[in-house]
Amino acid sequence: MSNQFNRRNFISSAATATLAAIAIPDIVSAAVSNSSAKKLTLNDNDTILFQGDSITDAGRNKTNTTPNSAPMLGTGYAFLAAGNLLMHQATKNLKIYNRGISGNKVYQLAERWDADCLQIKPNVLSIMIGVNDFWHTLGGGYTGTIETYRTDYRKLLDRTKQALPDVKLIIGEPFAVNGIKAVTDQWYPKFNEYRQAAREIADSYNAVFIPYQSVFDEAQKTAPGSYWTADGVHPTLAGANLMAEAWLKMIK
Amino acid sequence: MSNQFNRRNFISSAATATLAAIAIPDIVSAAVSNSSAKKLTLNDNDTILFQGDSITDAGRNKTNTTPNSAPMLGTGYAFLAAGNLLMHQATKNLKIYNRGISGNKVYQLAERWDADCLQIKPNVLSIMIGVNDFWHTLGGGYTGTIETYRTDYRKLLDRTKQALPDVKLIIGEPFAVNGIKAVTDQWYPKFNEYRQAAREIADSYNAVFIPYQSVFDEAQKTAPGSYWTADGVHPTLAGANLMAEAWLKMIK
Repeated sequence: MSNQFNRRNFISSAATATLAAIAIPDIVSAAVSNSSAKKLTLNDNDTILFQGDSITDAGRNKTNTTPNSAPMLGTGYAFLAAGNLLMHQATKNLKIYNRGISGNKVYQLAERWDADCLQIKPNVLSIMIGVNDFWHTLGGGYTGTIETYRTDYRKLLDRTKQALPDVKLIIGEPFAVNGIKAVTDQWYPKFNEYRQAAREIADSYNAVFIPYQSVFDEAQKTAPGSYWTADGVHPTLAGANLMAEAWLKMIK
Repeated sequence: MSNQFNRRNFISSAATATLAAIAIPDIVSAAVSNSSAKKLTLNDNDTILFQGDSITDAGRNKTNTTPNSAPMLGTGYAFLAAGNLLMHQATKNLKIYNRGISGNKVYQLAERWDADCLQIKPNVLSIMIGVNDFWHTLGGGYTGTIETYRTDYRKLLDRTKQALPDVKLIIGEPFAVNGIKAVTDQWYPKFNEYRQAAREIADSYNAVFIPYQSVFDEAQKTAPGSYWTADGVHPTLAGANLMAEAWLKMIK
């Protein structure tokens, strides 16, 4: 895995560099450095919970509830980030869960929040939600608005902080890659409001924010959007690795 | 992911360091540096094939034959190494396959080698086989010996080199963690002969050798064997990440 540019070089020379030669760690660093870059420390015996929609779900076996197990974690960024943490922080006795469910919008997280979050009592809660809150308004019959998203998301976090005052929050930016299958100009500029809302909510709840949109935007300097996401919304294996890399950058 | 020791410091101070503070990248580097440390370069449009037993198989969907797809790759080290390569070497148009099958010994690879290797025409062939060649002699009714393993393995590689003269080979060391469930003193010293045979075969076929046994031995400086392998033979998610980390270290 050659790393042909250090980060400083990358930032100063990206405009003129041969695109193919830019190393992915630098791409992720560049994308992430545009965000607040707040980082999070894990403690011994922490329980980490991934929550969200199909991107988090990633085909997990929903009858398996064993922490740290492959079937329960699916095959997406949550699985990849979890495995990396379990390897690198082997002394910490971490317990990692995935409870993402395909198709979910914020109100559907709320419906199952007692069982699928509060009872698990996570010390670290990573949420990525919002693509469906917008997408399903495009002929999917869903009538929620950006205000619904914002209000529901804040209510969900208020409820979480009340039950788990010390929980550390990680909020992932909803992202889409325009021009790839499901994602067209019809998404814009409306979809960007959901991205912005997630960022603002992360700020006001003192959450670590993961700018996935920037990560996918930057990654297209090395390979086309279709390499990173199959349909504009769901990451390929390469894209899931990119997300995990960004997620892990937020952990000290 | 703190990296509290650089590799040179690690090597000189490992004996006195607090074990828990040793970072995994250094552990893998230390383990791998004991091997021949030959490395392999990937070219554009390379096809990479992972072959082996259940450790490689890792629950892959055997009806899915799409290169680079999560279901086809399973959830083991092959999936993890593949995803990392696809992310870091995004410009190379790699095609990555997994054809490991649970329970296989060398002769069973040979039985399906035309369809599951030669027809795929890999430029890079990564094989990890040998645990069952020994294990199944312990009450499993299998009567093959170390000589069977050695002879069958060489025949398989001769056949491979004849059909694919330019193929680059990666050979993974069979490993076991003594004291964890399936693996007892009954395995030793006999099992070590299989490890040694794999290493010698790698040498004589100019293959990159991955010393998985050293990797798992070193990893026990941070967490007990049961953290890295569930039954002494099959890696946990943390262990699979360790294997992928070691595999990736052999790629330039």
